[in-house]
Amino acid sequence: MKNENSLLAQLIESFKILPGIGEKSAQRMAFYLLEKNREGGAKLAKLISSSMEQIRNCVSCRTLTEEKVCDICSSEKREKSLLCVVENPTDIIAIESSGSFKGKYFVLMGRLSPIDGITPEDLGIPMLIDRIGESEVKEIIIATSPTVEGDATSFYIRDQIKDESIIVSRIAYGVPMGGELEYVDNTTLSRAIQGRRKLD
Amino acid sequence: MKNENSLLAQLIESFKILPGIGEKSAQRMAFYLLEKNREGGAKLAKLISSSMEQIRNCVSCRTLTEEKVCDICSSEKREKSLLCVVENPTDIIAIESSGSFKGKYFVLMGRLSPIDGITPEDLGIPMLIDRIGESEVKEIIIATSPTVEGDATSFYIRDQIKDESIIVSRIAYGVPMGGELEYVDNTTLSRAIQGRRKLD
Repeated sequence: MKNENSLLAQLIESFKILPGIGEKSAQRMAFYLLEKNREGGAKLAKLISSSMEQIRNCVSCRTLTEEKVCDICSSEKREKSLLCVVENPTDIIAIESSGSFKGKYFVLMGRLSPIDGITPEDLGIPMLIDRIGESEVKEIIIATSPTVEGDATSFYIRDQIKDESIIVSRIAYGVPMGGELEYVDNTTLSRAIQGRRKLD
Repeated sequence: MKNENSLLAQLIESFKILPGIGEKSAQRMAFYLLEKNREGGAKLAKLISSSMEQIRNCVSCRTLTEEKVCDICSSEKREKSLLCVVENPTDIIAIESSGSFKGKYFVLMGRLSPIDGITPEDLGIPMLIDRIGESEVKEIIIATSPTVEGDATSFYIRDQIKDESIIVSRIAYGVPMGGELEYVDNTTLSRAIQGRRKLD
């Protein structure tokens, strides 16, 4: 339609950096904003810009926040004795919306992966160990993903915690609620069998 | 995870105005930019912002452009005698990438739809008729969509052109190239039969 330096062509190109967005979706987004919602577009631009500048990692749990210390870390209402270790900030959103955890979090921002050069330092594990040593944490719940790297990360953290008075647990992996056994994949099923619990 | 006024929550909310983007995709976009591509995010913000401010409709063909007159309208290389009428700027992109048209365009920015209150004036049809009267246009190719509204728009434009020396045509609708007849829908097939051409 027009030369590649036009503002519109650059806008479409720029939308394509977003995950899952190809040429067609980028076009739709650009035209939607230009034709239907310039006000929303201006607001979006402002929010992206200020987020890129102001959102940093919480100094206490490493999640993303525009404050120095995030809401959960600074909350007096959360149990200080429970610490849940997750891979990503989105995991916090998921756990929070389940409403089943009232402790604090620590976000690794990834998982151990020597192949990709991701070390314990990159994941803030020394910081996590320091935090455990200094605070009133009594139980660490590891909620890394059920993948090879997630498992390795979990084992590594377990090994680093020397204080025997601290309980280290990992969330249960198995058949999802409402899941029909015949449709559950083999790995999940074998995890569910390994992780079986005695009924009392 | 955090209160709804946090910058992150607002950013996620704002991404949801984009077409086809729900909660999960909006989260992915926000975290991708924050964790992996802040520079790209800053650039995207800048481009959205300047696009919202600077991109307007071409005074000649109504397409979206940051210039007063778009590249195609101001180009000396395009044939002035051919004018293709399309519904949206994306249609220009599609036709241009097919490489099969070297004339100029006129963009309706929609199609006639009395139910939605879209009148000929909204589509710039009086402007189109004026343009045809003033310029060296010899053929109008109508490329509105093969829908009830697209057909109505096409008929309306045809009726408005009084100058009998101007050829008014409409692009062909029918079975797409490489399409197997058995998978083509009924409406397309009936259009293809109606629009049959004598082989010489």
